[in-house]
Amino acid sequence: MRFVYGQFAKGHGTENDFVILPDPGNRLQLTAELTARLCDRRAGLGADGVLRVVPTPVLAGRDSGSTEWFMDYRNADGSIAEMCGNGIRVFARYLLAHQLACGPAFTVATRSGVRQVRVEPDGQFTVDMGPATVLGPGQARLDGTVLRGLRVSVGNPHLACLVDAELGPFELATPPGLDPADFPDGGNVELVRVTGPAAVSMRVHERGSGETRSCGTGAVAAAAAAQHAAAQRTGTQRTGGQAAGRWQVTVPGGQLTVTLDAATSWLTGPAVIVAEGQLDEGWLAPSS
Amino acid sequence: MRFVYGQFAKGHGTENDFVILPDPGNRLQLTAELTARLCDRRAGLGADGVLRVVPTPVLAGRDSGSTEWFMDYRNADGSIAEMCGNGIRVFARYLLAHQLACGPAFTVATRSGVRQVRVEPDGQFTVDMGPATVLGPGQARLDGTVLRGLRVSVGNPHLACLVDAELGPFELATPPGLDPADFPDGGNVELVRVTGPAAVSMRVHERGSGETRSCGTGAVAAAAAAQHAAAQRTGTQRTGGQAAGRWQVTVPGGQLTVTLDAATSWLTGPAVIVAEGQLDEGWLAPSS
Repeated sequence: MRFVYGQFAKGHGTENDFVILPDPGNRLQLTAELTARLCDRRAGLGADGVLRVVPTPVLAGRDSGSTEWFMDYRNADGSIAEMCGNGIRVFARYLLAHQLACGPAFTVATRSGVRQVRVEPDGQFTVDMGPATVLGPGQARLDGTVLRGLRVSVGNPHLACLVDAELGPFELATPPGLDPADFPDGGNVELVRVTGPAAVSMRVHERGSGETRSCGTGAVAAAAAAQHAAAQRTGTQRTGGQAAGRWQVTVPGGQLTVTLDAATSWLTGPAVIVAEGQLDEGWLAPSS
Repeated sequence: MRFVYGQFAKGHGTENDFVILPDPGNRLQLTAELTARLCDRRAGLGADGVLRVVPTPVLAGRDSGSTEWFMDYRNADGSIAEMCGNGIRVFARYLLAHQLACGPAFTVATRSGVRQVRVEPDGQFTVDMGPATVLGPGQARLDGTVLRGLRVSVGNPHLACLVDAELGPFELATPPGLDPADFPDGGNVELVRVTGPAAVSMRVHERGSGETRSCGTGAVAAAAAAQHAAAQRTGTQRTGGQAAGRWQVTVPGGQLTVTLDAATSWLTGPAVIVAEGQLDEGWLAPSS
């Protein structure tokens, strides 16, 4: 892969969208300002975040073994983020499309460690999301009422609230109120409705982003909470380790599948490349 | 120019943004469905509209003389629109960048007729917007109060309300109430604050789109209303014809200049190409 300054791709996973910047020589000065300009939905390309494709060895101090590519993920405001469960599928599709990885199974380095990725026969991607741990009960104040839920850690903190009502009417634009004792750094809140023996619908308010079309760790937290509740009802909840199961999770932006086993969780979903191209030189280096 | 299926550019004028599709052979089947998919801000490229670049002669029944290119403008929902004062600047910049037009002055065919375009020495573009006619007083119900304004026609209907207050606190997300007798087809509503002897700030609610970052005809209507009010105060309002003047119009997405003369109005503003590229084949022809 040759580095061309300004080369990009745009893609999405269940409508969580990203600008991908190939940077094989680690030469791109991806400032917070450039990231925010790229993600500007009117004056830039528009995205929820940027995925810089950079070789792992050039980043010092990372134990990534034979993993060739590092996903340098940035939020739309330019801040650095650890991992993104939807972004890594788009990243993996980009690697395959450009012969930067060989399928069906390979690894991608992220700030939260090396992640296993697998291409499914139908073209979807499955990513190891790490263990989802149900920590205990919690609650959120939403729209003047209190919703009970389960605190779940998927690396980041979640409150997954199983509700019996239709999800549509809930007002999720404003941040739900969380108990600071349970969530000292805030958290993501999922509204989860069980729609079948192994199926849930969910809506999510992401900490710092508001309601989004999809959230990878949120889908895992929703499945873990639904699994936990189902196991409690049937008395099959084991002590220690997480319950096993496979859940279809419908998010506003599409369909995801979460597989829980004793050691970890797997997130399966689509990854779409919309377009590839070249940023305009004048746009990249504005005179004013 | 060679036709390449899926080739595109993305650009904006004062943050009114567009996907540009070059189609020199008039071969592209630009359906409403494809337009809406392109303009989808998560699952597509994302834009307020699409500008198809198509030779004028191939469109039957149009008296466009020597004008070579027709701006086939579509709204984000796929519907067809007459003209777009911000879009035509971006269209003109694209023509120049691809040697499809020679500056500094040329013409562009639109559904509302052939428009004069001029490149300014600073790289901005000026477009003949046609006459802006102040029709008389009108009013809008906004946020529980009634605002008085001037009904202005710039080809499409506007109510421009001169207000003394800061524009920020007004709630413009919901459509302002207009008198159906004055606005049988609805209209755009501008909140206009005079900020200097020849300067206004404005915010706009566009019929069918909600509050937008910029509206070309809205800027012209705002300037015409401010000019009218100033002429009434100084007693220089002429009967017949429109008052002449040159106004700086600050919109949320940037700066525009409106020049009013006896016969027509001119809108000057920036036009930015952000990127060019190629849509993914799989995205263009989804299997499902």
